[in-house]
Amino acid sequence: MLRFTVQATDARARAGVMETAHGPIPTPAFMPVGTQATVKALSPEDLRATGATIVLSNTYHLYLRPGVDLIQRLGGLHRFMSWDGPILTDSGGFQVFSLGHLRQLSDDGVLFRSHIDGSEHRLTPELAVRCQEQLGSDIAMVLDHCPAYGESEEEMRAAVERTHRWAERSLQARQRSDQVLFGIVQGGWSAELRRQSASFLASLDFPGYAIGGVSVGEPKRMMYQVVDETAPRLPPDKPRYLMGVGSPEDLVRCIAMGIDLFDCALPTRVARNGSLFTRHGRVGVGNARFRDLDGPIEEGCDCYTCRSFSTAYLHHLFKARELLYYRLGTIHNLRFVLRLMEQAREAVLAGGFDAFADSFLDGYRSTNEETRLAQRLSRGSISGTRR
Amino acid sequence: MLRFTVQATDARARAGVMETAHGPIPTPAFMPVGTQATVKALSPEDLRATGATIVLSNTYHLYLRPGVDLIQRLGGLHRFMSWDGPILTDSGGFQVFSLGHLRQLSDDGVLFRSHIDGSEHRLTPELAVRCQEQLGSDIAMVLDHCPAYGESEEEMRAAVERTHRWAERSLQARQRSDQVLFGIVQGGWSAELRRQSASFLASLDFPGYAIGGVSVGEPKRMMYQVVDETAPRLPPDKPRYLMGVGSPEDLVRCIAMGIDLFDCALPTRVARNGSLFTRHGRVGVGNARFRDLDGPIEEGCDCYTCRSFSTAYLHHLFKARELLYYRLGTIHNLRFVLRLMEQAREAVLAGGFDAFADSFLDGYRSTNEETRLAQRLSRGSISGTRR
Repeated sequence: MLRFTVQATDARARAGVMETAHGPIPTPAFMPVGTQATVKALSPEDLRATGATIVLSNTYHLYLRPGVDLIQRLGGLHRFMSWDGPILTDSGGFQVFSLGHLRQLSDDGVLFRSHIDGSEHRLTPELAVRCQEQLGSDIAMVLDHCPAYGESEEEMRAAVERTHRWAERSLQARQRSDQVLFGIVQGGWSAELRRQSASFLASLDFPGYAIGGVSVGEPKRMMYQVVDETAPRLPPDKPRYLMGVGSPEDLVRCIAMGIDLFDCALPTRVARNGSLFTRHGRVGVGNARFRDLDGPIEEGCDCYTCRSFSTAYLHHLFKARELLYYRLGTIHNLRFVLRLMEQAREAVLAGGFDAFADSFLDGYRSTNEETRLAQRLSRGSISGTRR
Repeated sequence: MLRFTVQATDARARAGVMETAHGPIPTPAFMPVGTQATVKALSPEDLRATGATIVLSNTYHLYLRPGVDLIQRLGGLHRFMSWDGPILTDSGGFQVFSLGHLRQLSDDGVLFRSHIDGSEHRLTPELAVRCQEQLGSDIAMVLDHCPAYGESEEEMRAAVERTHRWAERSLQARQRSDQVLFGIVQGGWSAELRRQSASFLASLDFPGYAIGGVSVGEPKRMMYQVVDETAPRLPPDKPRYLMGVGSPEDLVRCIAMGIDLFDCALPTRVARNGSLFTRHGRVGVGNARFRDLDGPIEEGCDCYTCRSFSTAYLHHLFKARELLYYRLGTIHNLRFVLRLMEQAREAVLAGGFDAFADSFLDGYRSTNEETRLAQRLSRGSISGTRR
């Protein structure tokens, strides 16, 4: 089940609520990424305390380890990871396509190699649905063909058409009535292809729509352009999910364009690398200027980390590579992003989103370094920032 | 301040309470090791939830990073690590002596190299006291000369005599009245030297006594023999602290010999290596037989990990090297050891310690593998199992 209600709009920004079998998700919402059935370094209670209302997990990783059959036997993904809130799973397609493990691609599906042991596996739209039904997530995603940045228009067109055929097959393959399936709009950097894809998928009447194929290494302005052109063409009564986006300023900008749902590994990954969010931008907690700072990393922050520990202590833990740092840094960055979503939602409900967004973006220093890092991270790793 | 009361004895086993400025410590007590001002992977709340009443931290590590001056400026070690319970600090001597960083030894003190940057530092009995006063621990330890296993009797005798001179100087150097200083009995494997050391130190009237120089690579039976001979020669109205001992069976055996206080990195370190305690002995959570075990690692265990997660999930996290594993495994092993101490204490109070100890030791399979691992760990690392 999924009931989506738009409660308020402010220009193109929306506030709403998605109701699932595992509870409501006020939108706009950000999904922390729990790639391997765990948001790295956090317990379910930690996650809840950051304000998370839904978690994303990666079918590709869980399929390979520990296996979806095992998770099904143990009562499904919610029980396995002791998270009783909503879960969205991706289809596994992004990992297969973007991370160099692809062996063979046909209309039937894809052949890929495991990043763990090199074994070969086949993934089809039907199998992606079945795996996600075995996991028992609340929201499943269709298998899509997501080309990397720099592919030709011809390749983009072929990918869109294949994505559409796969979307139809995915809908056919569904068996569980307690799980919903979202479609994914592709089309690369072509406004025309994105329009066609949005229009075709809308005709299939999915309960929600994602914009895929961004955050694959393109310049930021291109991502903004795609969202700007695509979001208004999606059905207004369905949730709109922008996959793989999640730096603070991107969240604010894309909410302004009508996006309801986001996921991204960036806030948690950069936290582990020592980069923490503040209202003035990111800071490197390992920087010598924090060595003896007695206050919290973000004055006034309501997260557990800021309420409990000095920046000097975080600096020490980070420099000493102490395990506790990874948890404390992750908690801070997630709470920062999730609080930002709460504030954005309140601003939409109060009819003051524009002023809120301007104020936040004025104060938040987005460095070129940040953009470069974000792009490098989105390309570089098996559990990339998109999905 | 430190007020120690023996509440009950059962043969040689004792139950008591040590009262400190930061709260009472029911004994026998086990101190988790927070080497770098953090018990690896745990928050202060986690630690409290395992039943810890006192934490040990390492002066050697904190002196080098972040520095005791810094911690003092930030309000002391309790505030720095957000732990408001009692803290014991060691003197730093063990790390200097046993871990190969020693450069020069004289009656004045020791010259050693930092394991972080190779810089040279001098440590004297007076400086060890001053550093610990700057940290503001509740219980400080004297600097002692702790030879490795295999030294000659002559070397042992010289070490004992130097330890005694240093003990006197340490007492002279004290300035804080809210911190107590424990003496350390040395003497290696010689019953005669241990007797002399216990007798001399008792004459200095320390508020507590440690048995040092065990768990430095010797066979287990030799450690037991030293404890058996030394404990009865320590003042009965003072707490007795066996340094660096903490496998479950060693705890039970040494409580039987009259020890009140223990510390050891073994329970937390082996947890991180995948070795978890059960009443039947240690098990390797990465073992394939746990892949699909739905129950907890220890049936009936009251720790957060066992109450919240299946063994299959722990197995998955461990195999996937997920950060959450290290916290969950550490919580389980610490709770196991701390519960064992609570049970031992209750057994002494009820006059049934012998039956308790027999029953536990009968069920707990201590493998040769375990003994070998414990010995390897105690020698192998900068934050070894002794201190």
